[in-house]
Amino acid sequence: MSTGNHEGIAVDRQQAIPLYHQIFLQLREEITSGERAFGSRLPTEQELSAQFGVSRITARRALDELAAQDFVERKRRVGTTVAFRSPAKPFQGDIDQAVESLLNFGRSTKVKLLEMERVPARAPIDEALRVEAGTPLLRVVRVRTFDRHPVGHFVSYIPVDVAGHMTRANLKTTPMLALIERAGVRIGAAHQTISATLADAALSAVLQVDIGSPILRVSRTVEDRQGQPVQHILAQFRPDKYQIRLDLHSPAIDAQLL
Amino acid sequence: MSTGNHEGIAVDRQQAIPLYHQIFLQLREEITSGERAFGSRLPTEQELSAQFGVSRITARRALDELAAQDFVERKRRVGTTVAFRSPAKPFQGDIDQAVESLLNFGRSTKVKLLEMERVPARAPIDEALRVEAGTPLLRVVRVRTFDRHPVGHFVSYIPVDVAGHMTRANLKTTPMLALIERAGVRIGAAHQTISATLADAALSAVLQVDIGSPILRVSRTVEDRQGQPVQHILAQFRPDKYQIRLDLHSPAIDAQLL
Repeated sequence: MSTGNHEGIAVDRQQAIPLYHQIFLQLREEITSGERAFGSRLPTEQELSAQFGVSRITARRALDELAAQDFVERKRRVGTTVAFRSPAKPFQGDIDQAVESLLNFGRSTKVKLLEMERVPARAPIDEALRVEAGTPLLRVVRVRTFDRHPVGHFVSYIPVDVAGHMTRANLKTTPMLALIERAGVRIGAAHQTISATLADAALSAVLQVDIGSPILRVSRTVEDRQGQPVQHILAQFRPDKYQIRLDLHSPAIDAQLL
Repeated sequence: MSTGNHEGIAVDRQQAIPLYHQIFLQLREEITSGERAFGSRLPTEQELSAQFGVSRITARRALDELAAQDFVERKRRVGTTVAFRSPAKPFQGDIDQAVESLLNFGRSTKVKLLEMERVPARAPIDEALRVEAGTPLLRVVRVRTFDRHPVGHFVSYIPVDVAGHMTRANLKTTPMLALIERAGVRIGAAHQTISATLADAALSAVLQVDIGSPILRVSRTVEDRQGQPVQHILAQFRPDKYQIRLDLHSPAIDAQLL
């Protein structure tokens, strides 16, 4: 009988990511996932260096990086202990209670308008909105913050004929779909694809995370009642601040055969 | 009027990720997202080095890394062109058509059993399954492949009293929930949280991706009709092979006020 935890951990010397950062990533994951609880002891430098087959300097640098970001506390004699507490639950986009959850998200977060400009449609946006390449679109870039921490970054494209009611002023106070509805549009369906990506330099600056941090990515096209696309959004969330909650009930669950 | 594309790109010298790898990540994202189409030209080494403020050696190394992974082709005189074609759509877990989509996923992928062992419940699994720490659980690790490419990695925990019908042989051929039902359980609901993380060394080896690659992560607890948890799964997917498709219809969509 084995615990099955903290096993099979290793580093790979063939990779671009420095060894100390590989160890940092792995320990951080174990801490934020709850596998290493608040207050629990981390391995010593010596233990880590044996476990991963790296020098003590590398092991120390991984622990230093964890300490610098407040995931652990290092004390003489006591050693290194986990200082991270699971935050009050990250925002969850709850599909079952979509209305309540998203309204709540809107109410409790603040929106900041970063950019607003006309752009010609280009791949892959032209396809998503089903317009010719070059068709003029309004492009709006916003970031949502909660308690002054960035939560998500939103790049929206809207055909100009339904964007007439959008101004810098009312985009800060009024939901974008409400402004689209003012142009006479009746909202029909939304198609979303949920995926994962990495923060590049620009996104890492806006969301205040390291380059290469994991990002929860939602690509969404909203259509009117006739099935004509009226908005395409690329939403990128910090997974430590926002996750999607999705509940299934039988009989659909009977097909969840993974 | 600006295109809004390929702007604001930058690298950050304060980060653990080497500069050439930062540039690689960004260009790869632009290629796989479709922003840089198949056959289109990439900037030259000289243009990249000016754009990112790095040496030509660094720019060349980024292009070399893209070429080594077949994202681009480099030809004398012609320069560097995008060689990546969007693959036949990645698998999509479609919530609207959950039954069909997941059955299809099960039929067209192959499962490989990596580990099967008894383990004592530990954080955070004890909480998810609502059992005491130390309670014996069956832990099953599987990987699903399609066309010999790994798609997802699944770590499941099942209380031993409902795991009696699981053997190495039938786990390869029979859905896990079907085996749980053989123990007399009637499946009720499933609660899922969708997030993003990074591949660590162990996961990168199983899913055949680089360490630090983005991973789509689904944590799911399945309950019986009485609300008692009978299975907890951590599923980790390659986002280039599997994405979650989620469609919303009005009136719920009216609340999608982002």
